[in-house]
Amino acid sequence: MKRKGILFVMTGASGVGKDTIMQAALSNIDNLYFSISATTREQRKGEVHGKKYYFYSRDDFDKIIEEDGFLEHADYVGDYYGTPLKPIEDALKRGEDVLLELELVGARKVKERLPDAIMIFIAPPTLVELERRLRGRATDSEAKIQKRLARARKEIEAVREFDYVIVNDMLGKAVKEFTSIITAERCSSKYLLDSQIKRFLKEL
Amino acid sequence: MKRKGILFVMTGASGVGKDTIMQAALSNIDNLYFSISATTREQRKGEVHGKKYYFYSRDDFDKIIEEDGFLEHADYVGDYYGTPLKPIEDALKRGEDVLLELELVGARKVKERLPDAIMIFIAPPTLVELERRLRGRATDSEAKIQKRLARARKEIEAVREFDYVIVNDMLGKAVKEFTSIITAERCSSKYLLDSQIKRFLKEL
Repeated sequence: MKRKGILFVMTGASGVGKDTIMQAALSNIDNLYFSISATTREQRKGEVHGKKYYFYSRDDFDKIIEEDGFLEHADYVGDYYGTPLKPIEDALKRGEDVLLELELVGARKVKERLPDAIMIFIAPPTLVELERRLRGRATDSEAKIQKRLARARKEIEAVREFDYVIVNDMLGKAVKEFTSIITAERCSSKYLLDSQIKRFLKEL
Repeated sequence: MKRKGILFVMTGASGVGKDTIMQAALSNIDNLYFSISATTREQRKGEVHGKKYYFYSRDDFDKIIEEDGFLEHADYVGDYYGTPLKPIEDALKRGEDVLLELELVGARKVKERLPDAIMIFIAPPTLVELERRLRGRATDSEAKIQKRLARARKEIEAVREFDYVIVNDMLGKAVKEFTSIITAERCSSKYLLDSQIKRFLKEL
């Protein structure tokens, strides 16, 4: 018998470097399934439907909500984001670990429904630095930047709800910490099956 | 203010590869203080007093026990092993993390006195493989090998008392897991100080 998969939930403000950390981590770690989110937000240049996001119209998104097809869904700065439930359940049953990227409200909903989820918070070195990064990215309007900063402040105030905190002051360090958390959790004794211990002892 | 140091306790049977894992880990990880044990066992060829062990006579060892100078001490296969208390307390106060290597009885005593200790178990792939390694090492008599194997079996039965389990089937993997556990624990939100969060939020 195989152990069930571990669900990792990653939260952090826009501009904090989540995508970069995640991509580096995914290329270093085996058997980690990245859950693709659904969203109604505008497709940015270079983004592919079905790679990081499924881009849906508001109508299609509402239809999936009605069918209870999301593990969680939430409104974030005027756009809708949702986590399709079925592929996650399937991966966990197969014994694969799953990585979710969610904002705070969604992360809380997942933790409520699946309390074994491991919660990872990615923090910017300071809020000042986060603001600088958001302006450097130049994808958002001033109003959206202000909303994102206010949201970031709220998230940081909730940091103790998370199991792990990574401060992304140096990318290499942050990537190493992220992959270490996943590697270490896989060694946690709470996932040991009695059958594994028994099999081991019988081999004397 | 700095956070207090984290105490890591590592346990595993003789021959399981603890020393190799530890040496590789210590050369990869900063700010980790390795606690030097005291022992009455015979000094093996190449072993230096004060490097991995302090080698004491039984009389000297008893004197330290009387002065309550050990965090724990225990009899293991006829030899005495002890963990000097003062240097560990000092390192933890300085905010340094400390790594202890202990057999099961000692590890339990430390966990009792310092419940925040993070417990790491190093397991051989199988007991058959452990026996092969012990014979390959050729430092022990047949009677001692049998005692060590019986002890290993008892330790494995206690594996759920540990936070993490590393199966040393491939050295590179085991070292990576060991360093990952230390890196990940350092990211645990339980060590976050309120002052860190406040400082961060004020910088907006």
